[in-house]
Order: sequence, then C-alpha cells, then structure tokens
Amino acid sequence: MGRLPWLLCCLFLSLSLAAAARAATVHQEWEISYQFKSPDCVRKLAVTINGQTPGPTIRATQGDTVVVRVKNSLLTENVAIHWHGIRQIGTPWADGTEGVTQCPILPGDTFTYTFVVDRPGTYMYHAHYGMQRSAGLNGLIVVAAARGGPDAEPFRYDGEHHVLLNDWWHKSTYEQATGLASVPLGWVGEPQSLLINGRGRFVNCSAAAAAGMTCNATLPECAAPVFAVVPGKTYRFRIASVTSLSALNFEIEGHEMTVVEADGHYVKPFVVKNLNIYSGETYSVLIKADQDPNRNYWLASNVVSREPGTPTGTAVLSYYGGRSSPRKAPPTTPPTGPAWNDTTYRFRQSVATVAHPAHVQPPPPRADRTILLLNTQNKIDGHIKWALNNVSFTLPHTPYLVAMKNGLLGAFDQRPPPETYAHQGYDIYAVQRNPNATVSDGLYRLQFGSVVDVVLQNANMLAANKSETHPWHLHGHDFWVLGYGIGRFDPAVHPAAYNLKDPILKNTVAVHPYGWTALRFKADNPGVWAFHCHIESHFFMGMGIVFEEGVERVAQLPKEITGCGMTKGGH
Amino acid sequence: MGRLPWLLCCLFLSLSLAAAARAATVHQEWEISYQFKSPDCVRKLAVTINGQTPGPTIRATQGDTVVVRVKNSLLTENVAIHWHGIRQIGTPWADGTEGVTQCPILPGDTFTYTFVVDRPGTYMYHAHYGMQRSAGLNGLIVVAAARGGPDAEPFRYDGEHHVLLNDWWHKSTYEQATGLASVPLGWVGEPQSLLINGRGRFVNCSAAAAAGMTCNATLPECAAPVFAVVPGKTYRFRIASVTSLSALNFEIEGHEMTVVEADGHYVKPFVVKNLNIYSGETYSVLIKADQDPNRNYWLASNVVSREPGTPTGTAVLSYYGGRSSPRKAPPTTPPTGPAWNDTTYRFRQSVATVAHPAHVQPPPPRADRTILLLNTQNKIDGHIKWALNNVSFTLPHTPYLVAMKNGLLGAFDQRPPPETYAHQGYDIYAVQRNPNATVSDGLYRLQFGSVVDVVLQNANMLAANKSETHPWHLHGHDFWVLGYGIGRFDPAVHPAAYNLKDPILKNTVAVHPYGWTALRFKADNPGVWAFHCHIESHFFMGMGIVFEEGVERVAQLPKEITGCGMTKGGH
Repeated sequence: MGRLPWLLCCLFLSLSLAAAARAATVHQEWEISYQFKSPDCVRKLAVTINGQTPGPTIRATQGDTVVVRVKNSLLTENVAIHWHGIRQIGTPWADGTEGVTQCPILPGDTFTYTFVVDRPGTYMYHAHYGMQRSAGLNGLIVVAAARGGPDAEPFRYDGEHHVLLNDWWHKSTYEQATGLASVPLGWVGEPQSLLINGRGRFVNCSAAAAAGMTCNATLPECAAPVFAVVPGKTYRFRIASVTSLSALNFEIEGHEMTVVEADGHYVKPFVVKNLNIYSGETYSVLIKADQDPNRNYWLASNVVSREPGTPTGTAVLSYYGGRSSPRKAPPTTPPTGPAWNDTTYRFRQSVATVAHPAHVQPPPPRADRTILLLNTQNKIDGHIKWALNNVSFTLPHTPYLVAMKNGLLGAFDQRPPPETYAHQGYDIYAVQRNPNATVSDGLYRLQFGSVVDVVLQNANMLAANKSETHPWHLHGHDFWVLGYGIGRFDPAVHPAAYNLKDPILKNTVAVHPYGWTALRFKADNPGVWAFHCHIESHFFMGMGIVFEEGVERVAQLPKEITGCGMTKGGH
Repeated sequence: MGRLPWLLCCLFLSLSLAAAARAATVHQEWEISYQFKSPDCVRKLAVTINGQTPGPTIRATQGDTVVVRVKNSLLTENVAIHWHGIRQIGTPWADGTEGVTQCPILPGDTFTYTFVVDRPGTYMYHAHYGMQRSAGLNGLIVVAAARGGPDAEPFRYDGEHHVLLNDWWHKSTYEQATGLASVPLGWVGEPQSLLINGRGRFVNCSAAAAAGMTCNATLPECAAPVFAVVPGKTYRFRIASVTSLSALNFEIEGHEMTVVEADGHYVKPFVVKNLNIYSGETYSVLIKADQDPNRNYWLASNVVSREPGTPTGTAVLSYYGGRSSPRKAPPTTPPTGPAWNDTTYRFRQSVATVAHPAHVQPPPPRADRTILLLNTQNKIDGHIKWALNNVSFTLPHTPYLVAMKNGLLGAFDQRPPPETYAHQGYDIYAVQRNPNATVSDGLYRLQFGSVVDVVLQNANMLAANKSETHPWHLHGHDFWVLGYGIGRFDPAVHPAAYNLKDPILKNTVAVHPYGWTALRFKADNPGVWAFHCHIESHFFMGMGIVFEEGVERVAQLPKEITGCGMTKGGH
C-alpha cells in the first residue's frame, strides 16, 4: 500500500469516527390530545401535540437518531404519525402510515418512533390516519447538514426562519370525512383561513360570533407571526406546506427569493418573486434584507390552482432597528399572488427546479419497469372517488408490512392493480364515465433494486372543463423528476425529452391540470411504501397506491406495530 | 324413588327440553358509522347503527342467544357496546365495557357479541367507550318471557309500545369531553333537546339557523312520534332512559300509569301520574286507553333534579277511530311535570318500588362485607372530578378481565380502594375540600359467592347547597335495593330498617340529593364488573368503581377482546 492511499484511508476513518462521535439522539416526549385552539381567532377543537398546533419543530443534525415517544391521550380515537421526507432506511415500521406500516396507536398507548435522519434538509411530520392531519397534528423537521460533510450547503446565510403553511376549516374533520363518504357528496367548501405557523385571522370575526362560534381577534394565539431580520443580512426561509387541500403561492413583499432547496435536495439556484408550493413540499429560499428598514412587509400565502374562496394568509417581515414596530401592519394591502389559474406560470417553476450542479445525483439511465397512472375522478355506486387506472384505493385494516412479513394471505387483495391504461384512445379533456371503476387494496410489488418509472397522467374531472393540481408524495424514497408535460403523455414520444442530466430529487411533486409528470426511483428500500396525492380528501377518496419492495429483507418487526386487523389479539 | 318425585323429574325434564327447543338465536348485523342526522331538527354528526340513531330494537325471548356482529366503520375511532341489564352469565367478555371487559373495537374490525338473555324484561344497549353513548349509539332490548315459564308476566295487556328517552346536545361529544378535562372546566350546558325514540324538536329553529346550524322543523326525521291506541284496550309501555345527564319525569297526559316492571323485575303494582326515571333505568307501565278518543294527548318528558334548561320532550298519544288526526298536536300545552326540586316526591317513588308479591326473591339475610362509598365532587390539580371515598376512578388501558386472567401485573394499581370513609365526622351538607383526593384504577376484589352490601352516600358538591341525583348502575348483576335515606347514613342505625322482605331487584338505582341508598348483591358471577354513575360526564370524571369476583372461574377468553394496553401485539 502506497503512502497516499494509506493517508486517504486514515482520513476517511477519522472522518467516519468523527461523524459517529457527532451523531446524537434527539428525544421528544409527545402527548396527543384534543384542545380548544383558536388558530384563526375562531375557537375550535384541534388535535394537539403537548397542547400545541402545530407541534414542536424537531431539530436534528444529519446522522442523528430521532426518538419520539408518542402518548395517545385522545379519548376514543387512534393516531399514527408520518415523518414526511424521512426515508426510514432500515426502519420501515417507523414510517407512521396507518394501514401500510403500522396499526394505529390506541388511546392510552405509547408508541415510540425511532429513526435516523440521514440527510440534511427541511421536512415535516403529520398524522397519517383518517383525516387527522387536518385536525392540527403537524409540524416541521429541520435537519442540519453534518459539518464539513459532503452534504454541506452550497450557499451561505446569516440567519434562518421557518414557515409552515396550512389551510384551516371551522368544521371538524369528522364532518368533512362523513360528507366525502356520503351520497351525494357533502363538500366542506373552501378553507376559512390560511395559516402561517399555525396562525391566521378569520376575516369576519363578528359574523363568526353571530353564527354561534367563539371568535376573538385580539387573542395573542392568532396574532400574525413576525419574522425579524437585520438589515443587510441574508436569511434562509425554510418553507413547508402541510395543507389539506390548497396549492399555495408564497411571497415576501418587496423581497426576491432565491430557491436553494427542495424536499431536502439542493436546487440550482433560481430567483422568484412568488414561490408555488404544493401540499407535502418543502423549499428553502434565501432573501436579502435589503429594503427600507423603516416599514414592515407582508409575508403572503395565496391559493392557486383552485378558484380561491379563502383570503390571503399573512405574516409580517420586520427589520431590527427600523422605525416600524414589529407588530405593525405593513402600510400596503397584502399581495394577492399571481392569477390562480395561470397554470403555465406554475408549470414553468416546476420545470425550473433542477439539481444544484455540485449536487447532481444522476438517475439510472433507464427503467426496468414503467407504470402509467391515469388520475381520474369516478363515480362508484353513487360515491365520488378518485382512482388510478380506474382503481380507487382503499386501505386494508391489517398493515401491508405486517401482513406481508407474516404471510397473512387474505389481508388484502392479492391481485395487482393495472400497470397502465388505454392511453392511446383516452381523451383527457373529456368528461369520461369510466364505468369499470372499482375499489381495491391491492398493491404493486417491485423487484428489489429495480428502477421504476411512474408517469402520472392528469385528466378531466367529473365536471366539464375542470382538472386540478395533484401533489403526489412517495414514502420511503426520493424520486428523480424526469419531466413534466401538459396534455396526454405518449410513451413513444415524451421519454426522449426526459431530463437525465440534472433532475431534482424530491419526495413530493405536482401533477398539473391536464398534465403529466414522470418520475424515476430505485426500489432499494426494503419495506412497503405509500404513494399518494397529498390532498387529504383526495387520498381519503382513493387517490393513492402502495409499493412493496424487498419485504423479505426487512428485519423482525417490532410487535408494537401489530394488534389490528388480522393481527388482533396476537395473530 | 317414589312416583311423585319421578313424575316431577319427568315434568322438569320435559319443560327443560321444551325450553331448549324453543331457545333461538337472534342475529343482528350492525355497521357503526358517522352520519348526519337531525334528531331534533338540527343537523348534527351522530354515531349510528346501520345509519340510524337510536339503533334497532333487539327483540328476543327469554333463553335466546343474541349474536350481534358489530362492524366498526368509524374512520379513526374505536367502539365498544354494553348490553345494559344483561348479566352475561358465563360470557363476562361480552359485557362491552371498554377497559373493563374488552379492548375497544378498531375501525375496520368486526367484533361479535354473543350472550344469552336469561330473563324477560326491558333492557337497553349503548356505547361504553369514552362519551360515545352521547353521540347516538344506543337502543332497546326487549326480552319476552318464556311462554308458560315461571317468569310469565303477572299482568295482562293488549298491546305494547316502546319509549326510549334521551337528552341531546348540538355540541359534539369531543367538545364536551375536552371541556370536562380542561382547567377550568368547560361545561357544555344543559341539553338542547329531550328526545323520545330519537326524536325531538329544537324550540328555536330560526335561531339555530342564524347561528350557522342547519335546522329544518319540517323534516319527517324529527316529527313527533305517535303512539296509537285502540279505545278500551290496555297497553304496556316499556320505557327506558339512556340520557347522558338528565333525570326525567315521564307522563302520558290524562292517563294514569300502573308501574309493573323495573329493570327486568316485576314490581308490586302502583299507580302514578308521573314516572321518575333515571339514566340507565327501565320501567314498564300499563295504561288503559279510556279517555276521550276524539283528541290526542301528550307524552311528556321533563327534566327533574337539575334546574331545567331544556324544554319538555314530547310525543303524541292518539286513539284509533277517534276524530283527531294522529299527527295533530293535542289541544293542550305539554305537561311540565312536577317541581324539578321536589326531592321528597321522587324519594317516595323510589321507596314505593318493591317486588311483586308473586315474584319476591328474598335477599340473603346478611352481608359478608359492607362497602361504604362517599360520593363527592373534588378538585384535583385544578380538575373537577367525582370520587368515591376520595378516589377518583380512571380506566386502565389493559382491560381488567384480560389483565387478571392473564396475570398481567402492572396493568392497574394493585392497591384496593378504601372500603369506607370517616363517616362519623363527615358533614354531608358542607362544602368539603377533601384535600387527600387521588386518582386510581384500583379495584375491589370480592370473595366468590360472598354477599356484598354497598351503601352509596351522596353529599354536597363543590358549590354550596348543591347535591345532585346519581343513578348508579351495576354490571353483571341485579342488586336488592335495601333502603334509601336522606341525610347521613349511620351503619349502626339504618341497616335495622332495611327492607329484607320484598326489596326490588334492579341494575340501576338513584342516590338522591344528600341521600343514601343501600343495596346488596351476591358476588356469584365470575368476571370483572363496573359499577358507576350512569351520568356520562360523571363516570368520565371518575364516578365509578370496579368489582372482581371469581375471575379464576372464567373460561378461556376470546382473543378478540385483547390487543390493547399490555396485550398490544399479542402479549
């Protein structure tokens, strides 16, 4: 062995040891309970963590082990918490997806989630059971890059702020879910408020009070959040959207934003005035505090992609040392964002999001398997459902992971859902009857280590001239975003234009109205993983699928994830 | 063997065989789900059975086996159903009491309750999990006497009507429970409506509509129930109260009622104009349809024992062949019942309820053990609680039955709660601080076959000059009601006046304001049995205890009742 390799080896060894020495355990003790909260000044029962919604931000450093002890103190309701964006390598049972990776946590039970945060970036957590996420159980995960490691940030900043975006209804999630399952469908309507860090302001407090609700616009709990900056400094804003329905457009009045991170991956920097962010996505942007420090500026969150029925969500940017009180409303009207139906504008931002040149992880050059998924809205026995290739997804009551690991045949439909649809003859712009629509809890079994392409094709809904944006989220993986298009995807044509050079890795991606999105991932994480539209009501109505890969390589399951369905009573 | 015994033996055998031949199985398939219902014309989410609240009436004959297959189709919420008044002899695991006899039924799960209805009478069923009963999950059980058997009714009637009484709030049970657990306590207030067979009428529909609720006074769903009678005939009205809070007074305008049954036992008939009925109680009364058939009459349910904040609940009695349309409101104002605070009047009715002379089952002459329970309202860490002997009950998360049968030490506090309190010095009329109040899930272990006396002593609440009525319900048994008193119970004095001659057997009994009630039962039903105030919020706030007896004699537990707490994952 020559001197150089030996030195390199030593260097590597000491770096590894240093990393190991640095790796810490981040403990959290959480009690989940119902509390009366007033996020938008209107009093409502919310599912809280230690009495708060959103819950505490989990702060960790790359390589750390996060241990969250969750005590369910809801009275009659179970819970499960998903760590959105964390791949759970080696710990697929900690993904927190009820029906997929675990049985729900019963009232009175304590369940401990233990997982490694192996990559730096901005992530989130939220309930993954029924429509509980909408009830307030959500928060941020912020993972710092290991110091001096290969994932160190390719950008500099002086300070950091966190922005968690949400939408909020005054009706309970039970009412929402019961309406969605009813014939005819009962729709809860557009959200009453948009929240920033769990705070909003219902516009008509006196009307709310007249309608029997308790509304108090002077509560500190619903005061606009203030983000303070020092003149001349650069700030990283970590922005996450945990909305149940809304696609959002975010801006900081008077300040351009340089996009540098998406879903935990470094982006080739690009500058925007308005950032489109879909439910389940996270971004980091840099802003320079270079404006007049003597006034405040709006942070604004606006609905896009659906005709907005919700006023702008606002917060305040305030300069230290300026002459304006931090809590003073800016002198302007809050920005209302771009036209809600400007799909082209949003499409372009999607396409602009590619990997940072110094952090490109090239995708495998070709896929072993391609799954074409047509996203449609169907009517089944009078119920309005979402479906993929005319199969509307329903969760089994024995989690797949447990069922497959323990050989519990009969826990779910063993017939795999369809790989494709009759794409050549399909008019995505027409209202289609799709009479063969069915419901199934079958899943896609992937060969371990194989490369899988998925193309999500959007289409017209049940109403004429209507197609929505669907943010699709994959558990257990990041995927390369190979391409987007508007119109019908043609497998003979469009793959030729895939971006194989510098595609961004993400865990959540938008499928635009009447559009398609192509993504690629490696099925190399043993486990069972959900892949679904991150709009809470859409997943509830069947808009999801599930992948299995290498389940035989999964270590022995903790028995704490069992106890429901076919594993009731210890089967 | 002489001829007579031999003949008697033959007779007994053939009777038994005949009974066995008659015994049938009554099957029910239930799906529990949330539905929007308008019991009092105001739209509200309710927990329903097959889409209905109340659920279907279970009709069976003495000796039948009832099999109810319960599918939980709630989204995120568990369920458990108690068969109130059924002793579950040999099937203690089917009592449906979450935390005591079973783990709750998870969403998606199906649980089958199988039990024998061994005695004729009027019973009920309802959820026994959290405060779910208040959400609408309740109904009647009507068991006919075996024809020609020893339990044949000692009275005659031409027809039968069923009356299920309830109280109803517009706020959800989640809101109610969260308020009760909060500091300071958030009280939901008096019920908005009193329901008869699941129907009522909110008095101010336009105000409700203005307050953001959907109220439609013309819905058939909330039309007053009509009870039709043929002139000259005698009717049995089976009346049950499943209220969450309210003590009620029931009357049928212009018609005297002869009380003939209480909680499945035949009563020495007595005539009342007004029947007091407490939550968890059932009565049968006979009425003669002997009034002017050309007009209708009110059935009226009024709150007693608390200052009423709820209007009279009403239904209509109508004569066949009369000149009044069945749906026409009677020409009078609905009766408002006796003075709500006339305790003496109600006390007297309690005392008047004794066993029918031909159906006296004399109690054992003396008790092996006497438990004195002081019912107080306490403050623990700022929370308002109810307590017995200063111990506020809390349910464990591993059901006692499973824990004790499987030797799971640590599932609950092994220290037994106190047998008595310092009764000699205790001023039941004073506001007492009770600084030693604690919370516990310990239980009382009874020697199998022993005779147990329990004396429930009522006292002043946290507010001055306030004491409420508490209807106490015992699972797994009927008890003899040995006596009632107003004032402080003195164990040296009052037992001498116990009624050992013809006490009524009941499963639910009232403890009057500042009063005491003494009861006796035989601990001869192997299992674990709750004994608690049947006011939903009171039990939730700690007003209950649990008895164990002969758990070693219980047959092997069905594994379907396990899966929670220490039995999670099959322990």
